Amino acid sequence: MYSLKEQEALIMRAICNLRFVKEPAGLYEPLEYMMSIGGKRLRPRLCLATYNLYSDDIGDNIISPALALEIFHNFTLLHDDIMDRAETRRGQLTVCKKWNDNVAILSGDVMCILAYKYLTACPAGVQPQVLELFSRMGAEVCEGQQYDMEFESQPIVTSDEYINMIGLKTAALLACSAKMGAIIAGAPQTQADALYDFGWQIGLAFQISDDYLDTFGDPHVFGKKIGGDILCGKKTWLLVETIKRTAGASRQRLNEILAMGEDRAEEKIAAMQQLYIDLDVKQDAIKAIEAYHEKAMECLAGKGFTPAQLESLKEFSTSLVHRED
Amino acid sequence: MYSLKEQEALIMRAICNLRFVKEPAGLYEPLEYMMSIGGKRLRPRLCLATYNLYSDDIGDNIISPALALEIFHNFTLLHDDIMDRAETRRGQLTVCKKWNDNVAILSGDVMCILAYKYLTACPAGVQPQVLELFSRMGAEVCEGQQYDMEFESQPIVTSDEYINMIGLKTAALLACSAKMGAIIAGAPQTQADALYDFGWQIGLAFQISDDYLDTFGDPHVFGKKIGGDILCGKKTWLLVETIKRTAGASRQRLNEILAMGEDRAEEKIAAMQQLYIDLDVKQDAIKAIEAYHEKAMECLAGKGFTPAQLESLKEFSTSLVHRED
Repeated sequence: MYSLKEQEALIMRAICNLRFVKEPAGLYEPLEYMMSIGGKRLRPRLCLATYNLYSDDIGDNIISPALALEIFHNFTLLHDDIMDRAETRRGQLTVCKKWNDNVAILSGDVMCILAYKYLTACPAGVQPQVLELFSRMGAEVCEGQQYDMEFESQPIVTSDEYINMIGLKTAALLACSAKMGAIIAGAPQTQADALYDFGWQIGLAFQISDDYLDTFGDPHVFGKKIGGDILCGKKTWLLVETIKRTAGASRQRLNEILAMGEDRAEEKIAAMQQLYIDLDVKQDAIKAIEAYHEKAMECLAGKGFTPAQLESLKEFSTSLVHRED
Repeated sequence: MYSLKEQEALIMRAICNLRFVKEPAGLYEPLEYMMSIGGKRLRPRLCLATYNLYSDDIGDNIISPALALEIFHNFTLLHDDIMDRAETRRGQLTVCKKWNDNVAILSGDVMCILAYKYLTACPAGVQPQVLELFSRMGAEVCEGQQYDMEFESQPIVTSDEYINMIGLKTAALLACSAKMGAIIAGAPQTQADALYDFGWQIGLAFQISDDYLDTFGDPHVFGKKIGGDILCGKKTWLLVETIKRTAGASRQRLNEILAMGEDRAEEKIAAMQQLYIDLDVKQDAIKAIEAYHEKAMECLAGKGFTPAQLESLKEFSTSLVHRED
């Protein structure tokens, strides 16, 4: 088994070597741009990590499908940025801002198609299973994005609705990544299924930690401004919990903060942070992340994984959940 | 072998029976709407027709992949309508107009993914080949759309550029449809390849006849207003040929017509129709359609098709090329 660092290096190199340069340039340049502006490449790394639990024979059969996950992920980001009217991503201009919406729509479309193309490098014997898994995930991610958009105009979102939404929008892709590596390596079905559930729980923990870092992260490490979610009134884990925990005077205070305009940005962020602390939402977010992480590990129990395999998965999930950026 | 009418009935019934109703409704309703507003269903019909050259055993193995082609086609239309700011399609409001752009983006995305999902109903043994074919086609359609958009701001488009563009945007999908049916039926590779080339040439003929009908069709039969392409200055086969054939005074006349504003719509259409007639572009369009049709049939020669198979393909292509709507 390779170390997580070695796995990461393999994925980073494969992404560096990706070449889409083709005519028409107007279609493929935005795609190269989007793939080049970074990110942690978690999904292909998770896919390679679960493959590597079973096989050290790392070739195009696993690297290309792993890249398919990253290409698909970037396709969804590209289209999300149009829908959210986002101007920057990872400190760079979004495709819809650097070019325009039409370019972003069409370049995104071709990325979705190329993701499937890369997927077909997997062994023919598992291709039907991989494709079904991938397509189910793809539809789920769209469903999650739809709910996320609907939440914007919904005054109250319950915890169940929130967990369902991030399950579809974020966890489904991590679950698919984890299971796909196992399927391609020829893992036993029960272990592949357990890795799917593991990936799903890790995905929930990951998204809640994303919400947490956006409000309480270290601005020097996090890489983007703290408080973005607060300013746009995003229904995060923190806000959904706060809605649940407030009534009467505290609900009034929450509504006052939510109503603060752009001219009071700093004040709004500080007030919301304080409210999260006062209501124990901050510390409970950390507990929730840890609880989903534990649940993820429990999904693997009694499925016949070796201690070395469990250790490797624990290391991966810990790095993902206890990240600071 | 079933008659073309019977094949059409099978496809129409399968499309009627398509059900996407799922949560969230905001995502799947636009998709059902788009699939329900009609069209000739040419791509699944062509796919079924080539399958039926080899096999009468028509089940989900061919119907679902045939539907995948129609779903994919409608996905591209849905996104094209956003990019073109189109308000109506087939006499109904477009999804981006009836709902909004974000809905159209996301519903289109899920259609692309569902197209792949339907594709996976094909026999496992041919799945890698079918997927590669489909993904290549998908990328080509995006490339064609990109060129088409670029042509809008390009004063001169050559015939070669035009044929390349419609090849990618329109013919690639018909070529894929024709080959896919054959592959799924287990046809010999040379015949599957010949059907691809046949579909490509038919696609070119089809697009030129589309351009022709938009300007010279019978408004009672065509189903949409005549002259739409002229009014928006679209680089059609007719206009590209006219650019090629004009110089000096005739080029000046062309530019005068192109410069006519919205307030002179009727006059602009009539003047351009007359110019097409004067320059023999109208009659040459009909010749070009027939030439591509002949070329399509030539692609099939010497490949071992039986007279009955050739007859069936000829009947299909003739109905497609000599259509009036």
